[in-house]
Amino acid sequence: MSGNTFGTLFCVTNFGESHGPAIGCVIDGCPPGMELSEADIQRDLDRRRPGTSKFVTQRNEPDAVEILSGVYEGRTTGTPIALLIRNTDQRSKDYSNIAQSFRPGHADYAYFQKYGIRDPRGGGRSSARLTAPTVAAGAVAKKWLKEKFGTQFRACMTQVGELDIPFESWEHVPHNPFFAPVSDVSRYEEYMEQLRKSGDSCGAALRIQASGMPVGLGQPLYDRLDADIAYAMMGLNAVKAVEIGAGFDSVAQRGTTHGDSLSPEGFRSNNAGGIVGGISTGQDLEVRIAVKPTSSIIKPRESIDVHGQSTEVITKGRHDPCVGIRAAPIAEALLALVVMDHALRHRAQCGDVDTGLLPIPASASR
Amino acid sequence: MSGNTFGTLFCVTNFGESHGPAIGCVIDGCPPGMELSEADIQRDLDRRRPGTSKFVTQRNEPDAVEILSGVYEGRTTGTPIALLIRNTDQRSKDYSNIAQSFRPGHADYAYFQKYGIRDPRGGGRSSARLTAPTVAAGAVAKKWLKEKFGTQFRACMTQVGELDIPFESWEHVPHNPFFAPVSDVSRYEEYMEQLRKSGDSCGAALRIQASGMPVGLGQPLYDRLDADIAYAMMGLNAVKAVEIGAGFDSVAQRGTTHGDSLSPEGFRSNNAGGIVGGISTGQDLEVRIAVKPTSSIIKPRESIDVHGQSTEVITKGRHDPCVGIRAAPIAEALLALVVMDHALRHRAQCGDVDTGLLPIPASASR
Amino acid sequence: MSGNTFGTLFCVTNFGESHGPAIGCVIDGCPPGMELSEADIQRDLDRRRPGTSKFVTQRNEPDAVEILSGVYEGRTTGTPIALLIRNTDQRSKDYSNIAQSFRPGHADYAYFQKYGIRDPRGGGRSSARLTAPTVAAGAVAKKWLKEKFGTQFRACMTQVGELDIPFESWEHVPHNPFFAPVSDVSRYEEYMEQLRKSGDSCGAALRIQASGMPVGLGQPLYDRLDADIAYAMMGLNAVKAVEIGAGFDSVAQRGTTHGDSLSPEGFRSNNAGGIVGGISTGQDLEVRIAVKPTSSIIKPRESIDVHGQSTEVITKGRHDPCVGIRAAPIAEALLALVVMDHALRHRAQCGDVDTGLLPIPASASR
Amino acid sequence: MSGNTFGTLFCVTNFGESHGPAIGCVIDGCPPGMELSEADIQRDLDRRRPGTSKFVTQRNEPDAVEILSGVYEGRTTGTPIALLIRNTDQRSKDYSNIAQSFRPGHADYAYFQKYGIRDPRGGGRSSARLTAPTVAAGAVAKKWLKEKFGTQFRACMTQVGELDIPFESWEHVPHNPFFAPVSDVSRYEEYMEQLRKSGDSCGAALRIQASGMPVGLGQPLYDRLDADIAYAMMGLNAVKAVEIGAGFDSVAQRGTTHGDSLSPEGFRSNNAGGIVGGISTGQDLEVRIAVKPTSSIIKPRESIDVHGQSTEVITKGRHDPCVGIRAAPIAEALLALVVMDHALRHRAQCGDVDTGLLPIPASASR
Repeated sequence: MSGNTFGTLFCVTNFGESHGPAIGCVIDGCPPGMELSEADIQRDLDRRRPGTSKFVTQRNEPDAVEILSGVYEGRTTGTPIALLIRNTDQRSKDYSNIAQSFRPGHADYAYFQKYGIRDPRGGGRSSARLTAPTVAAGAVAKKWLKEKFGTQFRACMTQVGELDIPFESWEHVPHNPFFAPVSDVSRYEEYMEQLRKSGDSCGAALRIQASGMPVGLGQPLYDRLDADIAYAMMGLNAVKAVEIGAGFDSVAQRGTTHGDSLSPEGFRSNNAGGIVGGISTGQDLEVRIAVKPTSSIIKPRESIDVHGQSTEVITKGRHDPCVGIRAAPIAEALLALVVMDHALRHRAQCGDVDTGLLPIPASASR
Repeated sequence: MSGNTFGTLFCVTNFGESHGPAIGCVIDGCPPGMELSEADIQRDLDRRRPGTSKFVTQRNEPDAVEILSGVYEGRTTGTPIALLIRNTDQRSKDYSNIAQSFRPGHADYAYFQKYGIRDPRGGGRSSARLTAPTVAAGAVAKKWLKEKFGTQFRACMTQVGELDIPFESWEHVPHNPFFAPVSDVSRYEEYMEQLRKSGDSCGAALRIQASGMPVGLGQPLYDRLDADIAYAMMGLNAVKAVEIGAGFDSVAQRGTTHGDSLSPEGFRSNNAGGIVGGISTGQDLEVRIAVKPTSSIIKPRESIDVHGQSTEVITKGRHDPCVGIRAAPIAEALLALVVMDHALRHRAQCGDVDTGLLPIPASASR
Repeated sequence: MSGNTFGTLFCVTNFGESHGPAIGCVIDGCPPGMELSEADIQRDLDRRRPGTSKFVTQRNEPDAVEILSGVYEGRTTGTPIALLIRNTDQRSKDYSNIAQSFRPGHADYAYFQKYGIRDPRGGGRSSARLTAPTVAAGAVAKKWLKEKFGTQFRACMTQVGELDIPFESWEHVPHNPFFAPVSDVSRYEEYMEQLRKSGDSCGAALRIQASGMPVGLGQPLYDRLDADIAYAMMGLNAVKAVEIGAGFDSVAQRGTTHGDSLSPEGFRSNNAGGIVGGISTGQDLEVRIAVKPTSSIIKPRESIDVHGQSTEVITKGRHDPCVGIRAAPIAEALLALVVMDHALRHRAQCGDVDTGLLPIPASASR
Repeated sequence: MSGNTFGTLFCVTNFGESHGPAIGCVIDGCPPGMELSEADIQRDLDRRRPGTSKFVTQRNEPDAVEILSGVYEGRTTGTPIALLIRNTDQRSKDYSNIAQSFRPGHADYAYFQKYGIRDPRGGGRSSARLTAPTVAAGAVAKKWLKEKFGTQFRACMTQVGELDIPFESWEHVPHNPFFAPVSDVSRYEEYMEQLRKSGDSCGAALRIQASGMPVGLGQPLYDRLDADIAYAMMGLNAVKAVEIGAGFDSVAQRGTTHGDSLSPEGFRSNNAGGIVGGISTGQDLEVRIAVKPTSSIIKPRESIDVHGQSTEVITKGRHDPCVGIRAAPIAEALLALVVMDHALRHRAQCGDVDTGLLPIPASASR
C-alpha cells in the first residue's frame, strides 16, 4: 500500500537507493517446489547491468545477487524469497551542487516537495538502478510461467530518437547493445555516438511480447490485465506512453477491421494485443512503450534552487544518454510480474475451470 | 484484491450487470464532514448517460442515483457511501444467439474461457454501463478535491475515427454531443451519421486534464501517480493506449527540450504532463487516451461458437457506434479517483510537509 | 483498506447504518458456477434477526435479502455479488438526547472524537445491525466450503452472565432462543427475565467450531489462520476476548500435555484448536469468545455531553439485554469467511499440493 | 497479501529462516524526517535476543541490525527502510531426524502438508527467531509514536506455568529475566530450573499496555483497533488467547458496571481496555495474552513420520523452556505496529479532525 510493493499475490517489495549500501527485494507468494538458484536470476540481471557498452552508464557494477531466504536445498519453500544486491561502485563525490538545485525533467523537485528531504546521491531512490531488483523478481516469475504454461517474454527496441528500427527478427536482439531486432546496428551506433558527444540525450520506443499465454487471466472491471500492464509499464522510469495491440492506431480503425475474427484455426489478427475485456485471450500479449530522454545531461539548463531562486544546472557523472537502451529486460520483467500475479489470482478464484472449449490457437500477428 | 475495487484509501467497490436489477458502488474512505447530496452526483451521471443524442446508444436510462448510506443530515460521516442505480430499461429479448457464439473484439470469449459461465444480457458485467458507478464515485472525489485544493478535471475529444479535432477552447465542450473543444461539430455529425448507416463503428482519442494540482502526490517506485493514471485509463472499456505529457512524442525529443525548465515564475513547458519520478509537480496533469471501435456492430463477422465451430455473428440491439463519445466524463472521473486516492495516501505518510519552498506556479502548457 | 472490507480474496464490503434506508454488502471473489439463491442466504439471516424471542431487541425486521448482481440463471458468475437488505422498522423518534451525550461503554464518544460527526439514530454505523450483511456473506462462504470440502460451522452459548451452560449436545442448539447446547433452558430464561426487569444487561461466552477442515490453510507468519480468526472475532461488536484451542488454560499446561500427539488413527487431542504455526491441521477449529454486556441500558449512568460537561444518560428504545444471545450465527459466519479467504489464498499459492501423506483423521476433541 | 507483510500503511515485510544466511524486514510507509539510527533499533533487539539468561535458548546471537536503506544523514527519507540481521550461530547439525517426523504441537506437520516442502533447520520459517525483525520494526514505530503523541508501550509477565505473578510495579520489569513486575523473582527461577531439568516446558501469560494514546484510532467495522490487536497478538508464535480490557471477566459483568463512566476528570474505570466500537478512547490500551508451552522438548512424544507411520520424537538442541519469557518485547512491538498503522490510516481519512471537545483524561485503571 505504501508504494514499494508490486503485485497482490506474487508480491515484490523493493528497497534501496542508488548509493546506499545495498538494493534488493522480497518476493512473497512464490509457489513452493520450484528449482531456483542465483544463476537463474543473475542471467537477467546481467542483461540489464550498466557498463556493458559505451552507450550506457559507465558505472561498473557486477550486480551480483544473493538469495537470503525462501530456498531450501535448491527449491522454493513457499516462504519469502529475499534478494540482496550490494552496491559496490558508489562514488563519494560531492553532491552539494545537485542537492541544492533541481534538474529539469528530474524527480528531485518532486521528491523534495513531497518529503522535505531527499537522498541526492545518484538520484537516491529515483535512480533507474532500482529496476535491478524488479528484473531479479521478474526472473523468478518468468521461470515459473515457462515451466507451468510455456509462456515466454521478450522485448526489443523499435525506435531510438527519431530513427525507426524495422523489425527483422527476434534472433538479432541478444547480439547488439541496443536490443534491436536487426542484424546491422551501425546506423544507431553512429547516432548515439554523436548524441553522446553533444552532451544531450534521446528517447526510445520498445515492443514487449509474451507468447504461450494462458487464456482467462485478468480481472474484468478494475484490475484488468491490460490496466495492470499499463500500470507496470508507465511505472518504469522515464516511460511516458503505453500501447496495447493496435494502440493509437485503433482510433482510426473500423469495428469491422479492429475486432480480431475467430476461427477454429485461431484468431485471424491481433489488434487486441492479446486482451479483450481486460482478460487474456491466448493471443500473444503485444505492448509498446515510449521512453523519454534522460534528464541528467551535461548541457546547462535553466532551473531553480531549493530556495526558489533562479540557477543553472549541469549534471556531471555517469549517465545513460538513452535510458531506453537498457529498458528491454526491465520491461520484460514487469510484464512477467503482471502475468504471474494474474495467474495466481485466477487460480485462487477459478481453480481449473473447464469450459470444454479448447483455447483456440494464437496464430496471427497484428 | 478481487478486481472490482478501485483505490486503496478512497476505495470504490463496483457491482452489477447491464441487465440485472441494479448497478452501483460502495465508496469507503471518504473524509467526514463534506456536504454531499444526490444532486452533486447526478450532474456527472447525466453527462454520461445513454440516449442523449443520436450518436450514442438509444437505451433510455435515467440513471437516477440513490445514496443508501454514509451521509447524515447532508454531510458525509466517514463511513461507507453506498450508491445504487436501478436498471429500468432492460429488455427481455432473446439472448440465445449471443450466448452461443463470440463477437470478434468482444469480451465474451474471454469471460467464457475464464469463468465457464457468463451473463450474456447486454454484455453482462463487461458492459460499458458499469462505468456509471465509477462516474458517480468520481463526482464525490471531484467535490472533495475542489473544496480542498481547488483541483478541477475536464476532458474533451481530440480525434474521432480518422478525423482530428483541433483544440479551440474548453468552453465548447459542454455544448455539443461529442465533448469536442470546437464551436462547429457539423463535420463530425456527418461522419458519425454515415458510419451509423454503414453499420460499422469507429474509435476516438481523448484528452483529460487536471488543473490546480497539489504538489507531491504519488508514490515514487511502483504506485507512481503516472502508473496509477495509466492503470485507471487502460482499465476503461475499449481503451488501447495512454499517453502522459509528451507521450510518444518524447521518443524523438532531446533531453534539452523534453525536460521542463523551472523558473521562479513557473515551469516553462509541460512535457512531463505534470508528473516526474511518479510524483506530481503542480503542473497540470495532461493525459491522452485511445478508444477502440465498438465490437458490437451489425455487420456480419466470422467467428466461432461455444463448441469451437465456425459461425457468423451479427450484433443487434442498441449500441454506441463510437464508445469514445461518452468516455469524457468517465475518464475525468477516473483521473479524479486516482488523484483523490493519492491525496489521502500522501496525507497518511507525509502529513503536511513544509519544505519552505512554495510550489512554483504551473504556468506553461506543453 | 478503509475498514469496511473483510477478506483479501473473498472480499466482503459492508455498508449501511441502523436507521438509514438500507444495509448490505458486496462479495467480490466468489468462485463461479455455484448454485446460489436468496433462500440460501435468508436461512442464516433468519437465525440472526431481531424480534424472535423476548430476550432480544423487539425491533421487527424481516431482514429480507435481495441479490442485486453476480448470479445468472441461479449460478454465481464470478462477478461481484451485491446483497441488499432494506431497513423497514426505523423509528423517527427524537434522537437529540442521545446525540448530545455519550453512553458509557458505547462507541458514540469514540465516533464523535474520530469523525467530528456521527449518525446517532440507533447507533448508526456502530449498531449490531451491521452484522446482518456479514451473516449473509458468511452463508455464501459456508455453502462453497461445504460443497468443496464438507466443512461445517456451528456455534453455541457456553455462559450467560455468571451462569455456565454445560455442553450436552449440538442438537439442542436450534431449539432454544439462547443457542444453548442443553435440552432445558428454563434456568437461563428466568435469569434473563430478571435481568430485563432490572433494566440491566449481561455478557456471554460462546464456542464456535468448524469441522471437516482442509489441511494447510493459513499463511505462516503474519496472516496466520489463528490471527485472522482472532481478528474476525474481536471485530464482532462487544467481543472482548478470543481463545483458540486450550486458550488461557495452555498457560498452566506442560509441553508434554499441550502438544497434541499424532498417530496413524489421528490426533490424540485438540489443544491446538486445529491450528499450529498459523496453519490448519485438519483437526476441528475450536474458538471461544467473550461478549461484554450491552452498553445501551435504561439504568441511569454518569457521563459527559458533547461540550465535556457532566450529565446523566439513560438509553431508551429497543435493545438486546444480552447481545451474546444473537452472536452465534454471526460468529459462525465470521469463521466461515476467514476459512473461505484462506482456502482461496492457499489455492492461489500452492494449487493442489500433493505431499503423498494423507491428512490424518481429526479424531479427538480437547 | 501473501502473509508476510504486517500493516497497510506502515507495512513491514518480513523474510528469513532460522538457519538461513539472514533474517530481516522492509518497512514501507515510515514518515520522512525522523531521526533514526541502528542504536534506536538495537536497544529493543537486545531485550529480545537469545542467550541472555539460563531460562532461554542458549543460541548465541548478537542480532546486530544493519540499516540498508531509507535513512539519509541520520533521518528517514520516506522511502523503504530495509533492516538486515545476519544469522551467525547456525549449527550445521544433522536435521534428518527432525526432517522425517513431526513434533506434536509444532508447525512442521502443517508446513509439510501445506507446501510439500519445509526447511527443517531450527524450525525454518516457523522459528520464533523471526520475531526479531518484528521487534526491529516495532522500535521504529515506537519512536515515531513517542515523538508525535507521547505514546509509550510496555509489557510484563503475569503468570508462568501455574504460578500467578502479582503486579507490584512496572519498574521491576527491566531488572529480571522474566519481565516480571515484582522485586523478587526467586520463586520463578526455582520453578523454571525444575522445569528445565525435567525436560518439559510451560506456558505464560503477559500483559501489554500502551499509554498516552491518541483518541479516534481504529476503523469501526472490520479493521477495528481491537480486531487488529487481536490479529497481531494471536499471530505471535505460541499465543492461544487474547483479552482486551475486562476480557473474559466481562461475561459475568453487568452493563452498569462494565461500561466505563465518563466525567470531565476522565474515565472512571477501564473495562474497555481503551477501545469502544473498535476505536481508541484515549484510555490506556490494556491487552492480555496466553502463550502455550514450547513444543520442542526433550521428553519423548508419540507421533508419525512423513510416511504416516508411528514413531517417537525427541527434540534435541537449544530451545526455550518457556517462550513466554522473551515475548514481552515482541508483544510491545506488535502493539506499537498496530497503533502506528492506525495512526497513519486515521490521518489519511480524517486529517486533524477538531471536535471542539478535548479528549478527556485517561485517569483510571481497570
